[in-house]
Amino acid sequence: MNTSTSLRVRLPALVLVLQVVIITLYALFVTYDDNADAKMQNNETNPMENSVYRDYPFFADVQVMIFIGFGCLLAFFRFYGFSGMVFNFLTATFTIQWAILVQGFFQFYYDGKIHLGVINLVNAEFACAVILISFGAVLGKTSPVQLLFMAILEVPFFAVTEWAVLKYLRINDAGGSILIHLFACYFGLGVTFVLYRPVLNKGHAKEITSYHSDILSVMGTLFLWVFWPSFNSALTIKGDDQHRAILHTFIGLSSSTITAFALSALFNKRGKLTMADIQNVTLAGGVTVGASADMMISPVAAYVLGIMGCTACFFGYRYLSPFLAQTMRIQDQCGIHNLHGLTGLISSTAGICAILLANEETYGPSMYQIFSHRAPPLGDPKLLELQKLIPGLKPGLGRSAEEQAMYQLAAIASTIAAATIGGLITGWVMRLPFMASPPDGDCFDDELFFDLPPDAGTTVLSDTKIFDEKLKMNSV
Amino acid sequence: MNTSTSLRVRLPALVLVLQVVIITLYALFVTYDDNADAKMQNNETNPMENSVYRDYPFFADVQVMIFIGFGCLLAFFRFYGFSGMVFNFLTATFTIQWAILVQGFFQFYYDGKIHLGVINLVNAEFACAVILISFGAVLGKTSPVQLLFMAILEVPFFAVTEWAVLKYLRINDAGGSILIHLFACYFGLGVTFVLYRPVLNKGHAKEITSYHSDILSVMGTLFLWVFWPSFNSALTIKGDDQHRAILHTFIGLSSSTITAFALSALFNKRGKLTMADIQNVTLAGGVTVGASADMMISPVAAYVLGIMGCTACFFGYRYLSPFLAQTMRIQDQCGIHNLHGLTGLISSTAGICAILLANEETYGPSMYQIFSHRAPPLGDPKLLELQKLIPGLKPGLGRSAEEQAMYQLAAIASTIAAATIGGLITGWVMRLPFMASPPDGDCFDDELFFDLPPDAGTTVLSDTKIFDEKLKMNSV
Amino acid sequence: MNTSTSLRVRLPALVLVLQVVIITLYALFVTYDDNADAKMQNNETNPMENSVYRDYPFFADVQVMIFIGFGCLLAFFRFYGFSGMVFNFLTATFTIQWAILVQGFFQFYYDGKIHLGVINLVNAEFACAVILISFGAVLGKTSPVQLLFMAILEVPFFAVTEWAVLKYLRINDAGGSILIHLFACYFGLGVTFVLYRPVLNKGHAKEITSYHSDILSVMGTLFLWVFWPSFNSALTIKGDDQHRAILHTFIGLSSSTITAFALSALFNKRGKLTMADIQNVTLAGGVTVGASADMMISPVAAYVLGIMGCTACFFGYRYLSPFLAQTMRIQDQCGIHNLHGLTGLISSTAGICAILLANEETYGPSMYQIFSHRAPPLGDPKLLELQKLIPGLKPGLGRSAEEQAMYQLAAIASTIAAATIGGLITGWVMRLPFMASPPDGDCFDDELFFDLPPDAGTTVLSDTKIFDEKLKMNSV
Repeated sequence: MNTSTSLRVRLPALVLVLQVVIITLYALFVTYDDNADAKMQNNETNPMENSVYRDYPFFADVQVMIFIGFGCLLAFFRFYGFSGMVFNFLTATFTIQWAILVQGFFQFYYDGKIHLGVINLVNAEFACAVILISFGAVLGKTSPVQLLFMAILEVPFFAVTEWAVLKYLRINDAGGSILIHLFACYFGLGVTFVLYRPVLNKGHAKEITSYHSDILSVMGTLFLWVFWPSFNSALTIKGDDQHRAILHTFIGLSSSTITAFALSALFNKRGKLTMADIQNVTLAGGVTVGASADMMISPVAAYVLGIMGCTACFFGYRYLSPFLAQTMRIQDQCGIHNLHGLTGLISSTAGICAILLANEETYGPSMYQIFSHRAPPLGDPKLLELQKLIPGLKPGLGRSAEEQAMYQLAAIASTIAAATIGGLITGWVMRLPFMASPPDGDCFDDELFFDLPPDAGTTVLSDTKIFDEKLKMNSV
Repeated sequence: MNTSTSLRVRLPALVLVLQVVIITLYALFVTYDDNADAKMQNNETNPMENSVYRDYPFFADVQVMIFIGFGCLLAFFRFYGFSGMVFNFLTATFTIQWAILVQGFFQFYYDGKIHLGVINLVNAEFACAVILISFGAVLGKTSPVQLLFMAILEVPFFAVTEWAVLKYLRINDAGGSILIHLFACYFGLGVTFVLYRPVLNKGHAKEITSYHSDILSVMGTLFLWVFWPSFNSALTIKGDDQHRAILHTFIGLSSSTITAFALSALFNKRGKLTMADIQNVTLAGGVTVGASADMMISPVAAYVLGIMGCTACFFGYRYLSPFLAQTMRIQDQCGIHNLHGLTGLISSTAGICAILLANEETYGPSMYQIFSHRAPPLGDPKLLELQKLIPGLKPGLGRSAEEQAMYQLAAIASTIAAATIGGLITGWVMRLPFMASPPDGDCFDDELFFDLPPDAGTTVLSDTKIFDEKLKMNSV
Repeated sequence: MNTSTSLRVRLPALVLVLQVVIITLYALFVTYDDNADAKMQNNETNPMENSVYRDYPFFADVQVMIFIGFGCLLAFFRFYGFSGMVFNFLTATFTIQWAILVQGFFQFYYDGKIHLGVINLVNAEFACAVILISFGAVLGKTSPVQLLFMAILEVPFFAVTEWAVLKYLRINDAGGSILIHLFACYFGLGVTFVLYRPVLNKGHAKEITSYHSDILSVMGTLFLWVFWPSFNSALTIKGDDQHRAILHTFIGLSSSTITAFALSALFNKRGKLTMADIQNVTLAGGVTVGASADMMISPVAAYVLGIMGCTACFFGYRYLSPFLAQTMRIQDQCGIHNLHGLTGLISSTAGICAILLANEETYGPSMYQIFSHRAPPLGDPKLLELQKLIPGLKPGLGRSAEEQAMYQLAAIASTIAAATIGGLITGWVMRLPFMASPPDGDCFDDELFFDLPPDAGTTVLSDTKIFDEKLKMNSV
């Protein structure tokens, strides 16, 4: 097995191949969508009604989350700040350009072309969030080459699952609790299962934080926290649906945050706060309200969901993650199973409850917009009646609430299954030689892949004793 | 007196009680406003005219200010970065959920329900800014339990004052110079007066900054600086009023910034710049233009206001803060009296001048929109005439400029009085036992409430000599 | 020659003079534009159609780039973080208030007044970007007094060039590749040529980064990266033009980022990544797509432009910058010639190609909007015909594609010439005595102009040995 970790040949070679492929496919298949095409501008189009003004503000907010929020959050290791932030940058950037193609082929392809607008970028950012969440499971023990391979494979796995679920099962999932969080989580667990490193179960000397890395990571948390309402509402129906998605996400995050502080103090022997809880557990509420974010669940339900998600996430970090690592070979580095898996399951369940409880009394006729598959099918006289109340209402499938709930269940099960299989396959590919996989001793260390500034070395040197203590702080 | 500072029981217990109360009240009283209610969606509503598109961009900007701007700015102490940033996160999060209820009861309550939309969140963020400003007075010498109690009490004091002033005195205060900055300042001074710690007047060994904490704090300043125009304009009338509020705030901040650099160099013995000035004094202009931000004061007036506010703020830090601490038992840790009190007073005075100078020649008929209480009352024939020029103009109180000015004066006086009384009462509550108040020696130290990463300890150790020098740099 | 570097008298005196001048000119000449003037509000104006809602979101994004993006990026030196971030703050703030006047006189002056709206601020921010790019050439070896003088002189040089090029040559330059990047680059090179310090060619002991300064700088890069699409599209025509500018900028940045990673690993002897490449070279694509960002160049062309710009930029850093410093006395501290000059030239060339290839088949009749000077002149019957298809189309100059290309060439040449001459003159002024120019030994050192916190000193002391090694890491 090739054990060199120099990126000198492999990274440029891989990038070169990828760019040739991407350039070819972009040249052959990618063109502008109607809102970005000069030819479509005529005396009937009002420039200010261009879709860019509806999509771009949400796109920009999610960009901040992806590049700065995730980037800082993943820089929480003391000796792995460059890698956390910079590999996030590389992986996210590649993923978006790749997802434009792959998702584009499934969702925006007609007349022989993928039609590109800011809305594709928003979708690609969601694919990007998926890959970055999965990345959290293997943070510190993968090379950039491995991460690019993960993105290369995970994007199509995700795009196919997304397409199949949306096209055939037709579910409600505004904040992506099922398609984004559950998929990303179980894919990541699949990958890390294959990449299992027994020695890491004993704790790694460099698996520690520093005062500055902890602060940097909290900044990442805050950026994610602040813009999460934009994430959960970016793809909802415009108007009151998007309005509710913003309100619920904010409330859910809010209740989950104060719960995280309470639990952090309660379960600390000396009654102190733990930064890892504040960096991660506070965010659980954003995932938990996801699947029902745009529904009329009432503000108090969003509040309670935040508390539930936070509690599950907290105990997951405390008891489930060590259990998975010790007994099931699942080393979930950032605890994505807690922050995205458990919360995603709660969220999906809540979504099903909200679907079962939905009725015209609460929603009025616009129920058939939000739950579009419950709308009467084409030809049904009720459809015409409803279209008088809600102009432009599209014909649906005439599903009952119970039927829709069953489809949601099917979507959860098939997403988890597809993600796990995809993750296992991808993990297997990432274990191939020539991937520059870091040796056990060099995990969580920037030194392996970066030219470091002089002080980085000296810091390490003068603190050698710390290594021996094998501190396991913030190993979540 | 109980002197333990463990959060193990008290923080979770307090949070539990608060959550039970909040869940009960949310369940009983909080519903959606018309713009967030699916039932209101019908063939007459255009989704893109939903209020969320007018309010959310400003909400998001202010969120960045509250969570990232304030968070980084308050992390300027060398050993208190976790606390500054994280207690800000906790306090802000709790405040917003609490303010939704309390302000909601006073401002958005009808048909037996508080009606929730993003506009409530914007209002709640303003309440949040109030509590965080007051927090600045006691930074480093309070526990998170004390801070939550401060928020619990300050929110209703603020909401009642705000409601009474807006309902009975009916004032103009676009940027909240009176209701936000003056209230927050005098409330905070009231609290810190009661929490007086004589030993801190001699300077505290840990009351120092570090190279990194200073940079972090400047980043906070820059986030506040960049988004301050959104803050001052978030609640103005839409259109040209909001446009002017943005322009004036930008210009005021701008002139105050270069003034702060000049004064910082001028009053430094070696002609060097002091980071504390750049972190704080540069922002004075944003407060100073607040009360008149939406009026036709002319760009040059905004420029001059910025210089005036900055100068007052700078000399306040230099001469007034030490005086208040030494002779009046008012230990104003972050100098909120300089950045919010003095500037708030200048701003309020400028607002009165602008009101006295306002006339139809400058404003046209829209004068009666901005100064809505000067509009003719219902039944006055002039009202009908004006309504032809400005459709939808609401009947007012027929006040003269001088009358409006007197009401502004009354608002300033009663806000300061209410804030001071509220602050004193709240300070008294915060001194109760079981509040985990930090011992004098452990002020400005994260160690008390946080599990620290290994390097935090070593840093402190190797620099022990610094402590003895009792440096008072950046003690502002 | 006066060699004191105390700011005590000169900075306040200079600021005082500037403020008197600015206040006088604002008082005499600056008033509100129609969208910010209360008098213009009447029964025909819809508040939500105020220009502030079109301009402010882009303004706010660019503010983040200018103050936080540039601020963090320029803080990459280990001992020069305060200066990088804070001098950026001072220079940017002064530049905007000064540019409002100078650009306002050339672009927004009528009826004897400069008319102020958020659109002026957007323009002023672009002027600000120009000055900050030029600042990059002399980072670390200039005092704040010198930087203010640079801004005082560069703003009029820029405003005149911009005005002359736009009025007489009438070019297409959406992202400002010619007027912003090329101007800023050659102006900065002119300045640094005059400020040549032979001793710095041997490398300076303090010209190093630290672990934290590198992370801070990457954060700056990420903020610039995320909001660059707003920069390139802020001043395009609304609608599909702005939409395309966003798409192309994003794609260009994206391809340039992964190219930068590949090249960084390829040309590093040990196959590791270099932070300086990630901080700078990744951004090249944003400049390279600038001049043609709003045109129908196709997504794949944006992708290829990103790769080309990145490659030129990378080799520029590697080979051209040392050559310029050693043989041509041009010490380009941040390598602006690579990131803005070479990429600007590629971008301008690509713009010319896009102009030559533009035809009605691709663009439809809206070609005459984007390439407004190719529209038929007043009186031409074709104009009336086109106005039926595109209402509000303005008469143009009837230029052919080739003619327009020649004008673009003329604009490139004259911009470079004007910038170089302006830079040389400005450099000469900055060399005058009393400018507090730092002595060679104190370059790249915050100590000279800042009161430092205690730990900054100790850090330097304990690492003295590092100095002797004369490391030249990240000296770009």
